[in-house]
Amino acid sequence: MGVLYNQVADQLQGLIVEGVYREGERLPGVRVLSRQLGVSVSTVLQAHQTLEARGYLQARERSGYFVRRPARDVPEPAMPSHRSRPLPVTARDMTLELCADEERRMVPLATAVPHPDYLPVRQIQQSTLWAARRGLETLDYAFPGKASFRRQIAQRMATLGVVITPDDVLATNGAQEAIIIALRAVTEPGDIVAVETPSFPGILQALEVVGLRVIEIPTHPSEGLSLEGLALALEQWPLKACVVVCNHSNPMGARMPDARKRELVSMLAAANVPLIEDDIYGDLNHTGERPRPAKAFDRTDNVIYCSSFSKTLSPGLRLGWMIPGRHMASARQHKYFVNLATSSIPQLAVAHFLEQGGYDRYLRAARQHYRESTERLRSAVARAFPEGTAVSRPQGGFVLWVQLPDGVSGTELYQRARAENINVAPGRMFSTTNKFENCLRLNGGNPWTPVVESAVQRLGMMAHELQESPFKRSPS
Amino acid sequence: MGVLYNQVADQLQGLIVEGVYREGERLPGVRVLSRQLGVSVSTVLQAHQTLEARGYLQARERSGYFVRRPARDVPEPAMPSHRSRPLPVTARDMTLELCADEERRMVPLATAVPHPDYLPVRQIQQSTLWAARRGLETLDYAFPGKASFRRQIAQRMATLGVVITPDDVLATNGAQEAIIIALRAVTEPGDIVAVETPSFPGILQALEVVGLRVIEIPTHPSEGLSLEGLALALEQWPLKACVVVCNHSNPMGARMPDARKRELVSMLAAANVPLIEDDIYGDLNHTGERPRPAKAFDRTDNVIYCSSFSKTLSPGLRLGWMIPGRHMASARQHKYFVNLATSSIPQLAVAHFLEQGGYDRYLRAARQHYRESTERLRSAVARAFPEGTAVSRPQGGFVLWVQLPDGVSGTELYQRARAENINVAPGRMFSTTNKFENCLRLNGGNPWTPVVESAVQRLGMMAHELQESPFKRSPS
Repeated sequence: MGVLYNQVADQLQGLIVEGVYREGERLPGVRVLSRQLGVSVSTVLQAHQTLEARGYLQARERSGYFVRRPARDVPEPAMPSHRSRPLPVTARDMTLELCADEERRMVPLATAVPHPDYLPVRQIQQSTLWAARRGLETLDYAFPGKASFRRQIAQRMATLGVVITPDDVLATNGAQEAIIIALRAVTEPGDIVAVETPSFPGILQALEVVGLRVIEIPTHPSEGLSLEGLALALEQWPLKACVVVCNHSNPMGARMPDARKRELVSMLAAANVPLIEDDIYGDLNHTGERPRPAKAFDRTDNVIYCSSFSKTLSPGLRLGWMIPGRHMASARQHKYFVNLATSSIPQLAVAHFLEQGGYDRYLRAARQHYRESTERLRSAVARAFPEGTAVSRPQGGFVLWVQLPDGVSGTELYQRARAENINVAPGRMFSTTNKFENCLRLNGGNPWTPVVESAVQRLGMMAHELQESPFKRSPS
Repeated sequence: MGVLYNQVADQLQGLIVEGVYREGERLPGVRVLSRQLGVSVSTVLQAHQTLEARGYLQARERSGYFVRRPARDVPEPAMPSHRSRPLPVTARDMTLELCADEERRMVPLATAVPHPDYLPVRQIQQSTLWAARRGLETLDYAFPGKASFRRQIAQRMATLGVVITPDDVLATNGAQEAIIIALRAVTEPGDIVAVETPSFPGILQALEVVGLRVIEIPTHPSEGLSLEGLALALEQWPLKACVVVCNHSNPMGARMPDARKRELVSMLAAANVPLIEDDIYGDLNHTGERPRPAKAFDRTDNVIYCSSFSKTLSPGLRLGWMIPGRHMASARQHKYFVNLATSSIPQLAVAHFLEQGGYDRYLRAARQHYRESTERLRSAVARAFPEGTAVSRPQGGFVLWVQLPDGVSGTELYQRARAENINVAPGRMFSTTNKFENCLRLNGGNPWTPVVESAVQRLGMMAHELQESPFKRSPS
């Protein structure tokens, strides 16, 4: 059903974009469309609601749906330019400010945290109660991970084309810890590591913790990491690892096509540079099948796979995992040294949750929600922000990358927004350079409320104001 | 009551040690002693059982208690000699072997993990069930820690003479993570840090993770870290931190007297070297009052306090905390960078447990148990091991430090024991040098079973065998 009404919505949207239906026109009635398209009335209604969320339709009481073509068809952001000098990593202060802001109650458009309204709260609670009753099983060091959790992970990985045994899985406190362990396993301090740019702040923080230098490779808004940029970097620098989010990268939302994943894996294997894959958004595809991870194309055991349930089940569990492959011995050791093991109860609870089979059902609802909520935010931004703004069109996850018109400072906008209790993530958090000074990341996973709506309008007004007094771009 | 029967036991033990009662003699009847000492019959019986555990009495059915003076009155180990060269830290391989061994079922005399028989399993379960029912509260990033947990910690710290607010507490995945965060907050890679020697392996692993060099300061078997050795090191080296377990150090079991704690704190404050205090065994004093931490004597905010519930409530919770004082901003940042937050449910569960007031009641029972079980193991070792063996007399916690006769290799003994499914911790894990080659650490917290008893006898026989073919000590 989900797939069908999205198809209908895409079809109608195409007709609007092509000008078959023009702004202000009333769409044919629901029953007429139902006959024309050979789908049920309820499918048409769902498609209408979807297009309303995307900003293409407006419902008028008793009159039906009217076309409201978004003021401009905002483009996706351009691919960032390439920089080829390794830099030490420091991205500290602003992250913590954001984090502290989360504690106070602001309009939460900054951090990439799922909204509790869309989490399976009741099922998690039931599984946690089940886990709590395990008594002795909950009390011992769960190193390298609870057997039941590792077995469930192995089963899930098999459905993604990654055939492993439970012994290949190491439980971690979220994906961030997994990435740090992976980096420690394959690098020494001072080494150079390639990452996507814009990068999610966590990876820059991980590189800083391990004391590494970074080469930032541009990310294409829909195809992901530039393989051409990576090839260049591999020629020029002694890279020791490459960290990539192939599925619904943060902040760009890009999904690398399978053919490019295959090429990425084989390029890095040929260069003998380990690929550290972060797949935390993989389960949150907006359309089609759950995309495969790069690990599924790994024939030489050169990919270290990292993931977590922080974007799907809840960040409070602090539960992730990694598949270190031939680096298992080193990864186990690093995990043991930093905090010995991962808490037992979350592992038992998630194993139970997965075993019950409720996870896939929940994901179907979550995907639909995030597709609609990011679409809705995207069209609100398109309406509210100045001409020249570009917004990513994510294929999964729930964040949007907003490129402001040249000369409008994301940092300045961030500061003005904070003063009005609106929290956004300024572009400079996503690179070690200032090349994203005119960008923002917005969390599109919130329920659409009047508070969020007016926050986006305020942001747009601030951006307009800033455009009248543009900042001077300092040389990066 | 606990105190009284221990006093009686100490009194009787003194009479045996002094030769008032000789080996093989029958003690006066219970009623006679009860009258003589002015205590109840049940107190005398408890004292007898305590002395039986310590190896000084043997119960013979229908005949009463007979003196069995331990074969030799084994001495405490000597204070290790002082080394004054900073060394890089590597202590990796053997730790992991021990850890893997724990997975298979061996006689668990190696790792310092509390035995589940003596954990408050039912209460933890009830508190975890309570926590699981908190729903939304369990789902968010608990950074820098759940308010209820931090409030309970602040209350407990006040009873130890450390007056802080909940905002001064940072929740961590156990004390190991807290120590690593503390080290990162006050050092740079390559810096020199002073630790006790023998040191627990975790601190050496923490130093390795952060990339530090170490100066090992001898620990006196009952008074703890040598202040004289520390003074020398402070003169000679640019120390950046000093990590100390003041209360019931692992592996020595020493408890630093309050006067020396005060001196330690003031020496380090004068030298402007932060003291990182690990207090995980503080709650497990065998006698008297719960000792105060060094932090209680800190007037200049120079002590970073670290602790956890891994030795008391259970290691599987992975729940610790730290009080970073003026290093809070840096500590928060490091915690956020390495894994964002500590799992919510264990924090809520422990906060509930503490609030219910069951913790102190549980501790009274645990202290008594560990006193008795370590005493019992100590006398079994004294009987089974060769002349020339020395064994620590811990004042808290549940580990024993065994110094084998000169020339007997702890590593060799460890390997032979493994072959017979007995797991012990060889001395070389406790230093970056080989100065503890003739030592072992034993976990004295297990219930006394025939399996444990015969394992200790086997270890003693192996030590006798090794004494006949001593190893060549290589220069350290």
